[in-house]
Amino acid sequence: MAQNIYDDPAFFKGYAGLPRQTRGLAGAPEWPAVRALLPDLTGARVLDLGCGFGWFARFARAEGAAEVTAMDLSENMIARARAMTEDAAIAYVRGDLDALDLPQDGYDLAYSSLAFHYVEDFGRLIAALHRALAPGGRLVFTMEHPIFMASQAAGWITREDGRRSWPVDSYAREGRRVTRWFTDGVVKYHRRMDTTLNTLLDEGFAIGRIVEWHPSPAELDAEPALADEMERPMMLIVSAQR
Amino acid sequence: MAQNIYDDPAFFKGYAGLPRQTRGLAGAPEWPAVRALLPDLTGARVLDLGCGFGWFARFARAEGAAEVTAMDLSENMIARARAMTEDAAIAYVRGDLDALDLPQDGYDLAYSSLAFHYVEDFGRLIAALHRALAPGGRLVFTMEHPIFMASQAAGWITREDGRRSWPVDSYAREGRRVTRWFTDGVVKYHRRMDTTLNTLLDEGFAIGRIVEWHPSPAELDAEPALADEMERPMMLIVSAQR
Repeated sequence: MAQNIYDDPAFFKGYAGLPRQTRGLAGAPEWPAVRALLPDLTGARVLDLGCGFGWFARFARAEGAAEVTAMDLSENMIARARAMTEDAAIAYVRGDLDALDLPQDGYDLAYSSLAFHYVEDFGRLIAALHRALAPGGRLVFTMEHPIFMASQAAGWITREDGRRSWPVDSYAREGRRVTRWFTDGVVKYHRRMDTTLNTLLDEGFAIGRIVEWHPSPAELDAEPALADEMERPMMLIVSAQR
Repeated sequence: MAQNIYDDPAFFKGYAGLPRQTRGLAGAPEWPAVRALLPDLTGARVLDLGCGFGWFARFARAEGAAEVTAMDLSENMIARARAMTEDAAIAYVRGDLDALDLPQDGYDLAYSSLAFHYVEDFGRLIAALHRALAPGGRLVFTMEHPIFMASQAAGWITREDGRRSWPVDSYAREGRRVTRWFTDGVVKYHRRMDTTLNTLLDEGFAIGRIVEWHPSPAELDAEPALADEMERPMMLIVSAQR
């Protein structure tokens, strides 16, 4: 079972204040790039894994999705999502991405934002999603980029010449990484890029698009703090087709 | 036109002494991983881009390839390859990967080892290879990994805690990187992983396999210097299908 750090009070307090929670999808700088990978949602059956406050579930419904199953491990998240939503076609359910039990051919789109790096058994997850998607169905997900995750001591360094760099070590050694994010002891699982993509291929998906997110010049002008994302990718976005 | 550093006498002297030149394919630690991605070569028409001393061309013929066109920008390489080969079914030709002119549907396999990072216009190259491959044909190539290429000052650093790391910066800024390798002024072109893979997809290839090469435990035991490859990938291997 994945760690449920989101129900730690100190973590949740910090997390709930992030722009992507207070402002929703528009508060996430990568959202335009993610949205560009989505299929037409008219009439679609949508699965959202790690739904947080339900922003994507409500977006999908506004775009015409027939129904949305929105799942999160955190009671806090599910409670907040339900409180923000009045829509009988959205079902918010608690669920663990390490132990999914989904109907076969039940969805046209499986979506996940920044949850897959908490999953220990990626092969089992992707096999479950392949079964759960209808033929032609799409999987679109974002996760922390392996360059961001790999080091045993990830974080900016300043080199002797004053250059700011992001150190990579242990890239080929996959598995548990423990970091501080709002609280100590946040557990993630580093996987190489090849493992992520080959797992999709092995389970029968075709790779549709890969995005190592970084800002456009206009986005950088509007939000100068995004300059970090030009130096090293924090986020990987993948679109795959069943 | 790509830089022809291989005909620089100092560079060529150093390069010609590498195990992968003196010992051939067996001198390249990634060779077993590359070989695993090759199709059956019986009767195949093979194109080798950046053929060096012709080791792969001769291997392909020994595996049953009907004919091999082996191309290199370097006169030194082509001369050495011809001197090492007696086989009318291998044609060694000088050619620039930035200006390919190939027959349509002329090949069943396009192969390239550690040459594509010298190519400035990757889109043009991949479009040319898609036209040159027969339907169902395979493209297998290795190139320097973008993690290895990205930094404006690539090279190992030792952090304050004594940890050895590989710095990444400028990852999203693609283009020219000038490094020292046997001589100063070796010009390469950094491309993000997403650009490499999306270019293949955009030109009509299906992604078959990605390998961020690192040694197996047995390979590491046999050659301890390969430990660096556990820390950061130097080489990307890609298999794609037309």
